[in-house]
Amino acid sequence: MMTDVLGVWPENPHQARVLRLLRDDGPASRAELGEAVELSRSKAATEIDRLIERGLVETVGPAASRGGRRSSIVRIAGGTRFLSVSIGATSIEVAITDGELRVISRITEHTELRRGPTAVIGQALELVSKLRADSGTTRFTGAGIGIPGPVSYHEGIPVSPPFMPGWHRFPVREMFGTELGCPVLVDNDVNIMALGEKHAGIAKSFDDFLFVKIGAGIGAGIVVGGSVYRGANGCAGDIGHTAVDDNGPMCVCGNSGCLEAYFGGAALTRDALAAARSGRSDQLAEQLAEAGTLTALDVAHAAAAGDPVAIGMVRDGGRRVGKVLASLVSFFNPGMIVIGGGLAGIGHALLAEIRGVVYRSSLPLATGAMPIVLSEMGDQAGLVGATRMISDHVFTAADAPT
Amino acid sequence: MMTDVLGVWPENPHQARVLRLLRDDGPASRAELGEAVELSRSKAATEIDRLIERGLVETVGPAASRGGRRSSIVRIAGGTRFLSVSIGATSIEVAITDGELRVISRITEHTELRRGPTAVIGQALELVSKLRADSGTTRFTGAGIGIPGPVSYHEGIPVSPPFMPGWHRFPVREMFGTELGCPVLVDNDVNIMALGEKHAGIAKSFDDFLFVKIGAGIGAGIVVGGSVYRGANGCAGDIGHTAVDDNGPMCVCGNSGCLEAYFGGAALTRDALAAARSGRSDQLAEQLAEAGTLTALDVAHAAAAGDPVAIGMVRDGGRRVGKVLASLVSFFNPGMIVIGGGLAGIGHALLAEIRGVVYRSSLPLATGAMPIVLSEMGDQAGLVGATRMISDHVFTAADAPT
Repeated sequence: MMTDVLGVWPENPHQARVLRLLRDDGPASRAELGEAVELSRSKAATEIDRLIERGLVETVGPAASRGGRRSSIVRIAGGTRFLSVSIGATSIEVAITDGELRVISRITEHTELRRGPTAVIGQALELVSKLRADSGTTRFTGAGIGIPGPVSYHEGIPVSPPFMPGWHRFPVREMFGTELGCPVLVDNDVNIMALGEKHAGIAKSFDDFLFVKIGAGIGAGIVVGGSVYRGANGCAGDIGHTAVDDNGPMCVCGNSGCLEAYFGGAALTRDALAAARSGRSDQLAEQLAEAGTLTALDVAHAAAAGDPVAIGMVRDGGRRVGKVLASLVSFFNPGMIVIGGGLAGIGHALLAEIRGVVYRSSLPLATGAMPIVLSEMGDQAGLVGATRMISDHVFTAADAPT
Repeated sequence: MMTDVLGVWPENPHQARVLRLLRDDGPASRAELGEAVELSRSKAATEIDRLIERGLVETVGPAASRGGRRSSIVRIAGGTRFLSVSIGATSIEVAITDGELRVISRITEHTELRRGPTAVIGQALELVSKLRADSGTTRFTGAGIGIPGPVSYHEGIPVSPPFMPGWHRFPVREMFGTELGCPVLVDNDVNIMALGEKHAGIAKSFDDFLFVKIGAGIGAGIVVGGSVYRGANGCAGDIGHTAVDDNGPMCVCGNSGCLEAYFGGAALTRDALAAARSGRSDQLAEQLAEAGTLTALDVAHAAAAGDPVAIGMVRDGGRRVGKVLASLVSFFNPGMIVIGGGLAGIGHALLAEIRGVVYRSSLPLATGAMPIVLSEMGDQAGLVGATRMISDHVFTAADAPT
């Protein structure tokens, strides 16, 4: 998939498992690690020694005695640094984590995707340089990049992303890889958020679940067997253009009645402006007069303030999202659905509508024990997910020779 | 999952791979096998010798010389026998295959599921005894059982199958296992047909695809990474109860406007009888007068004969199936869709409607290279799929000791 820039990848599946365990569960004694990877004491010791020799793992101190020979505690090398870059519709967020994916420093800056990939990636790389200098980071073990549109994962390039002129087939991974000198993976923001929920969020103990992002657009991240399922062309999870009404409004995609033509940030903003200007909603009209513009989150505020038009908009949207999810629950039988993204901030009014439709319409066997919950990670999901993605990749053994 | 009844399972992943290769590709030289499983010549020889010692593999003769030491040709032991039992709504089909899943003998008999599991399974076991005697089979390496309803795969029991009184949570796997004295797996017929298409059908070279069965009901088998994806509760693939119209006819499931309430064997039969009796279709009225009853396939015949009402029924059905599949294509991004089951016999009129809707409505990136095709296996898909399922299971190594 890519060449090993730094030569620090694990040499075999046992070493890879040790690294992932230390990443996910923190420092552990050699004895515990040996048990966890199901190796004999001497074999485990050999692999751990080799990881220490190669600078991937370090000894912290002696373990509490469990009788017999004393064990020592090891951890992922303290100097391990992963980079996370989340490019959003209007912002870039850059973060540096340690080997256990804990954030060491982060920075966010406004951007405009329509300035094109060279300018935006240049801006991101400047932020990286700044963070690097501030935190004294000399090199990264790997970098995960999220962008808000369809990505050909294996090539590391965006494919026909809407509202991103100039980004189609731009070599995003290559550009970051060349500048950073470390392994880089690029994926769309929804898949990355799903991975974040798997790593540190409410879906931590679930292997098969759906992450549904409701923001400017609506998309799903599909997790199967603990990994992101990307489909034959890498575009699995597109639910924003599911037809919910054949006679509905025209969508930017060219079809009519798509879910996104009714709900999501763009549709809500359009409806909110119409309700404010037509005088149907005094609350929204007031908010418009005050701020000079309205966003989707103003609808959430108006709904929370009891405005009936805004409440109706949230309910209609939740019902339509629920209708699409109901079919997917019967089809995919996920263990859980996590709702995230900017509009998840609308909160329980939205969740209640979605739950109502899904629990009423899906196959009972599929909904029996299936929770539908709001993400608790917020914007951390993408940040953590990007480093989870690249560390999963880096902490994978090359094919072991036999 | 189950105990090893016969003690003939592979001892490690290398042996398991050798067995699967010999099953799928037929006899091979030791040298070829060694290369295919990426083992050194001496290591491969050790594993193959061990398989021969244990009676799983046998030598057929010398291989053509490739220079150097002569290799010999081996194959799966000639006496290997797998059993396939497909329980359908109105028939039982039993077949015996060899280790390469080629059918040695088969038999089909009418049955009535409503007679209950004890009677129907008893009938199936009698057919097995008959085939066994005719073919001189002394023991089975494993048996795969398909039933036409939801199955808890890990328990081997049906769960709330519609129109199957007495089958809910009946220990189907246990009953077959006790009588046959070999490993048994039970799954629903759609998943098994999907596996058959993967093994020997048009989907052979696809790892991620959808198999859609249109018969009495409508269901999907989901293949991810070459294996059946069953979901959190084992009921993934239920697409028959996707709502295609909120104001549609009542469905047996209690919701209204489900796909199956419009299309599939039961709905077509209902609509065909209505069209014949109301005089809207002379063709169907004639067929009804002749045969005394109508089935879904009479609609296919009437449509083929140019009857406009029947053609309309096929088109409407295809359009609704297409609508449901269009959403799933955007969501799941399969590499291919295979249409099978009894009503696939309607053929290209149905296929054309489905294609029209899916190619028009799904995400272009997802449909770009995705074929939508009719199964060419017919009723062989279930037969082969059941033996593929159980042989995959039997030809899997127990956890190798380290």
